[in-house]
Amino acid sequence: MTVRTLAVVGTGLIGTSVALAARRHRVTVYLFDRDESAVRAAAALGAGRPEPPPRPVDLAVLAVPPSQIAPVLAREQARGLARSYTDVASVKARPEREILATAPDPSSYIGGHPMAGRERSGPLAARAELFQGRPWVLTPTRFTAKPAFDRALDLITLCGGVPRVMRARAHDDAVALISHAPHLLASLMAARLRDGPAPAARLAGQGVRDVTRIARGDSRLWGDIVESNAAAVAAVLTRLQEELAGVLAALYDLAQPDGGPGPETRGKSRHTLVDLLERGIAGVGELPEDRPENSDH
Amino acid sequence: MTVRTLAVVGTGLIGTSVALAARRHRVTVYLFDRDESAVRAAAALGAGRPEPPPRPVDLAVLAVPPSQIAPVLAREQARGLARSYTDVASVKARPEREILATAPDPSSYIGGHPMAGRERSGPLAARAELFQGRPWVLTPTRFTAKPAFDRALDLITLCGGVPRVMRARAHDDAVALISHAPHLLASLMAARLRDGPAPAARLAGQGVRDVTRIARGDSRLWGDIVESNAAAVAAVLTRLQEELAGVLAALYDLAQPDGGPGPETRGKSRHTLVDLLERGIAGVGELPEDRPENSDH
Repeated sequence: MTVRTLAVVGTGLIGTSVALAARRHRVTVYLFDRDESAVRAAAALGAGRPEPPPRPVDLAVLAVPPSQIAPVLAREQARGLARSYTDVASVKARPEREILATAPDPSSYIGGHPMAGRERSGPLAARAELFQGRPWVLTPTRFTAKPAFDRALDLITLCGGVPRVMRARAHDDAVALISHAPHLLASLMAARLRDGPAPAARLAGQGVRDVTRIARGDSRLWGDIVESNAAAVAAVLTRLQEELAGVLAALYDLAQPDGGPGPETRGKSRHTLVDLLERGIAGVGELPEDRPENSDH
Repeated sequence: MTVRTLAVVGTGLIGTSVALAARRHRVTVYLFDRDESAVRAAAALGAGRPEPPPRPVDLAVLAVPPSQIAPVLAREQARGLARSYTDVASVKARPEREILATAPDPSSYIGGHPMAGRERSGPLAARAELFQGRPWVLTPTRFTAKPAFDRALDLITLCGGVPRVMRARAHDDAVALISHAPHLLASLMAARLRDGPAPAARLAGQGVRDVTRIARGDSRLWGDIVESNAAAVAAVLTRLQEELAGVLAALYDLAQPDGGPGPETRGKSRHTLVDLLERGIAGVGELPEDRPENSDH
């Protein structure tokens, strides 16, 4: 193992979970956060020491929102916090662009994203097992040097994750589809629940609860995430919006009394709905097995 | 108890679950289904007898798709299957209209909808506990006579459900919001998963799985349901579509490189996203407690 000392910058859910996993392997961990209480909470959980390291650590994990990665990396490289740097943000392309433009040493950085999370946020929600068996994407740039790559792979091993190497752009397109767009859809549906008739929510069952569950995530963090991946998220939601328009046209046809549109129009509209429902069933089939213990970022 | 004999017409998930619950209270149950194998399967599970009753039963439960309720009720009333009739469809207004126009005796019918279900369908997915503690809506018309009402209430008691009396229209508006629109949204999102980049689905976690889970439901049945409640579902999805348009406009603003829209526009767009995310969190808060053992229709 080339990672014996670790710095975690940002002791929220993910940063503290990484620290807890590393501690289990006797790695010495140093904790940082703008929020003093978050550092104290993480340290109290046994995640590491709430103090600066005496000398540069092997690897620093930047567990900050996407928009903060480039500035925090520049700051920490300037003061020599670590030999190598990675991050855990769920957006990779825009931070990478900013880093290549501003970082003192792009060669010691590699982007990372563990595909695990919870709705609950903050150090108290952290769990050492959070990354167990989950994909952990690495996005090396053409400048990334081998030591940074190797130390990031070691970190993933320490956390029990499954490394996947991707281009930043490909990663962002993928998470726009499987995480960011679903989150905004869940929020759109959940927001509607408030303008419903009084008894509606009382009748609600597990279905709508599942559809809207991820909408509980931290609104500031998610605002930063979707903004940082705005183009890819917009592309997914634009295709969805186009299909929604067709579905609405079909529903309005079918809402008319039988004297309304002729049997042919009704038949087409029915087909539109059933075709969507069938492609939906097929789409769910594309997903890997349920892993109830973890939830998507 | 005024229900000692029961007929279940349609031995799918809901019909067979009702039969199993009634059998636990020693009610004599007679099973019907167009599909012989479904009746045999239900009978094999101990749900009742796969044969016509010697004389009219106390209550007949029509567990058929919304579009079939009026014709099946007319047929069964004509041959005198039962003293009273109810159904379990998740749409109430359109069937009620059709029944008032075509049923031999509207007074012996009361609409019903147990707010419970599973993605899996068919008799083999049935469970006697499916309705335990779940709301069960009754929608009496101005013609519904007391015996029909009382027998439906007895059935709900036998199934362990919680009766709620509503107007058919109010029920349909509510389920459009908490069940039918979420189902179509889940299908729209799930359908998108198929046009994603290859590795996307492999990276998927619990979040997108939950958002799309209900999309696995039977496509024919759900096509019938959303068609039967088309106007109310369209109203919910139209409001959602309007907000989606605003979200997309904000995303396209924020997708432009700095030097694109001015700071004021960016600020407005950020506000649009965070405002949605926050109203989403509040919307999830409107829902009752998790009941993982059951899922919404």
